[in-house]
Amino acid sequence: MTAPSSPRVDDDELVLLTDLYQLTMTQAYWKEAMQERATFSLFFRQMPPTRRFMLACGQQHAAALLCQLRFGDTALERLAGTGLFDAGFLDWLADWSFEGDIWTLPEGTPVFENEPLMEVEAPIAQAQLLESLVMNLVQLETVLASKAVRLVIAARGRPVVDFGMRRMHGVDAAVRGVRAYRSAGLAGTSNVLGGLRHDLALSGTMAHSYILAHDDEREAFRAFARHYPGTTLLVDTHDTLAGVRKVIEIMREEPEVAVRAIRLDSGDLGELARGARELLDAAGHDDITIVASSGLDEVQIETLLEDGAPIDAFGVGTQMGVSADAPVIDLSYKLVEYAGTPRVKHSPGKINLPCRKQLYRRRDADGRYAGDVIALRDEPGIDGEPLLRPLVRAGRLDDDEMARADEARERVRESLERLPDALRRLAPGDDGYPVDLSPELQRLQAGS
Amino acid sequence: MTAPSSPRVDDDELVLLTDLYQLTMTQAYWKEAMQERATFSLFFRQMPPTRRFMLACGQQHAAALLCQLRFGDTALERLAGTGLFDAGFLDWLADWSFEGDIWTLPEGTPVFENEPLMEVEAPIAQAQLLESLVMNLVQLETVLASKAVRLVIAARGRPVVDFGMRRMHGVDAAVRGVRAYRSAGLAGTSNVLGGLRHDLALSGTMAHSYILAHDDEREAFRAFARHYPGTTLLVDTHDTLAGVRKVIEIMREEPEVAVRAIRLDSGDLGELARGARELLDAAGHDDITIVASSGLDEVQIETLLEDGAPIDAFGVGTQMGVSADAPVIDLSYKLVEYAGTPRVKHSPGKINLPCRKQLYRRRDADGRYAGDVIALRDEPGIDGEPLLRPLVRAGRLDDDEMARADEARERVRESLERLPDALRRLAPGDDGYPVDLSPELQRLQAGS
Repeated sequence: MTAPSSPRVDDDELVLLTDLYQLTMTQAYWKEAMQERATFSLFFRQMPPTRRFMLACGQQHAAALLCQLRFGDTALERLAGTGLFDAGFLDWLADWSFEGDIWTLPEGTPVFENEPLMEVEAPIAQAQLLESLVMNLVQLETVLASKAVRLVIAARGRPVVDFGMRRMHGVDAAVRGVRAYRSAGLAGTSNVLGGLRHDLALSGTMAHSYILAHDDEREAFRAFARHYPGTTLLVDTHDTLAGVRKVIEIMREEPEVAVRAIRLDSGDLGELARGARELLDAAGHDDITIVASSGLDEVQIETLLEDGAPIDAFGVGTQMGVSADAPVIDLSYKLVEYAGTPRVKHSPGKINLPCRKQLYRRRDADGRYAGDVIALRDEPGIDGEPLLRPLVRAGRLDDDEMARADEARERVRESLERLPDALRRLAPGDDGYPVDLSPELQRLQAGS
Repeated sequence: MTAPSSPRVDDDELVLLTDLYQLTMTQAYWKEAMQERATFSLFFRQMPPTRRFMLACGQQHAAALLCQLRFGDTALERLAGTGLFDAGFLDWLADWSFEGDIWTLPEGTPVFENEPLMEVEAPIAQAQLLESLVMNLVQLETVLASKAVRLVIAARGRPVVDFGMRRMHGVDAAVRGVRAYRSAGLAGTSNVLGGLRHDLALSGTMAHSYILAHDDEREAFRAFARHYPGTTLLVDTHDTLAGVRKVIEIMREEPEVAVRAIRLDSGDLGELARGARELLDAAGHDDITIVASSGLDEVQIETLLEDGAPIDAFGVGTQMGVSADAPVIDLSYKLVEYAGTPRVKHSPGKINLPCRKQLYRRRDADGRYAGDVIALRDEPGIDGEPLLRPLVRAGRLDDDEMARADEARERVRESLERLPDALRRLAPGDDGYPVDLSPELQRLQAGS
């Protein structure tokens, strides 16, 4: 395996991927000479109803890009063309770069309502300008990883492979989605560019079109297996069990043709898997595994396995690729401190937590997660492990921390063991995970 | 307004954004010297339950990119590194380009189940290789435009502005989504890069953080209105109606400060809009308009307007940005013809239509769409307007047709007038739109 690519800005206009008001507000701060330090906190207020936890992902990638953002000539010309910006402000943008601090949860950390995934601290004109892009970048991976881990849970140790590239939302989602899938624990991906760029094993079988382009299914199987010894053959183009019999016959006729697996992509997967398993075993091929695909989601996988379907691996696409049951999370990036003073919007019925914060996670005697406390960054006397870490200091990315981003996959694996059992269930439920506010935050909350 | 950017491949590895099996199957075709012409048809079998029609979008953009795809040195090195491909095949890929034909529906055409959005005809090794990327590119814009047009319908002529960039799935979805929004008829976007690249008016107000960064809401309003005469002020940071009163006072104190609109972003939008309207009118500001945002979808907008809420424009983001109620459509790209012979997969209970096709749309005496017929490409005697047009011939994009892609917005506007009333309703329903098969397709279907 190659190392995952370092994040790089591959579009010199990426800095313009923002909401217009970020630029007009930044110009206003510039005109008003408001350059005090501000802290913005990234969090979500509501867990999607079909999730029991989210995996914070994408923050390291986002931070690496943010540190590289500059307003180049093309971007500045584009902005000048809008007629909204003063020449002096555009000159100031030409020298703009992020020089602040970013604290984040390590990628792959389970996260709950109101907990900060990331805090950005910088002169307000820098921190404000990043809002829209930070949210876009972090949301994608957080949403996709949080869905994918449910497939991993449902498959109970069997490999889950991403087949979803064609159904994901555009090029960036497809490529960077694989980064989230890698963290979530998928075994492989069919997505060539995504897998190569983000270091997840490539996996692929064959399509119905290959069978149909040949005059005969048997000929198609034989040709493909000769080209790719150890391949997976797709057996459901015409009749699944007849397809399995053809695979068995080919292997009898040409013992040197090695087939490693068959794939079922339609029909009653449980029944067909049992039928295929019987045929394969009776022919002495208990080493040939069965891969199932066909619009699967985690609930179908759980049901298939509870019913004892002899399926060894799953290919999943559509439902996972857009996180169809929870395609969005209401991330907020809120100003919580400016010029050393707590700031908070009045929102009836909503929790709004001012000031720079730290998140603490407590464990019980068995090492299981027992509950979290959201506290002020420097508040003393809070139990548990502090989870937010400085990733960027004065605009410089911490290379050691970036190297550790690569630990996300291991972190997720370990987290799945440490989460309370109820949180690993797929069905919706409100078996709460306790998230408390520290004494200081309770005091500030009461006073707001 | 500037002209929309021409589509360009901005990542020299985009050609690798495919499923691995496309490359292994292509190598197999190469080894087997299977280079006959194949036709693949792009369609969907199931309308999402919350949609009554889809808008076909993204085909022109996709076709323009496909004609530019090449395997450059970087991509070939990546492939060589997988160990899956012969040197001879990689040499062949180095010379690969798309040399076939692409017929498409014009962008912005309403489309229904089983109707071809696009047909790709080329030597099989070319047409097969494009499958995954075509589907990814076309799905995104089709899904987003089909959602956005529902917001346009709900707003009954009032402007709808896209605020969704931060909640969309990654960079490409956010940028290219604006292309779909433009076709769907949105009035503007807050997304700077998306709007500049795809020629949709930029729109922006201010955020709560700007208010909170100032010590006093009134000072924040005053400063922003001085910087941006004719701006929109966000009035709900602390208390919405108190915010409106401050706006009125500022305009009384400084008559040269022109405010064009106020924005409501929380609370009971209908009630607050009525309260704000009364205050503004009583102060002689009946020219100041009211913009509403706050997690709106098309059903909420319809309800607000049915209840008479005096809202003049809507900013929409989260729900529209991922098409939350239908984030995916089950596009298929199926081999339907190879070497001049019809090909079709056996799928119990599914319609599978072989051969190259044409789609005809009939109108009634009032010019309303009366029903469609799916027919063979050259089948004589079918009534209605043939909708599929050749966009690419022998690998060359038709520049006249590409220029017409720009007509998508007008096409959608006209289509909304011509669709039967039932299809413009937002609520789910199965008031069918008749889509028939031609006599020849019925015959082939019966024989399959």
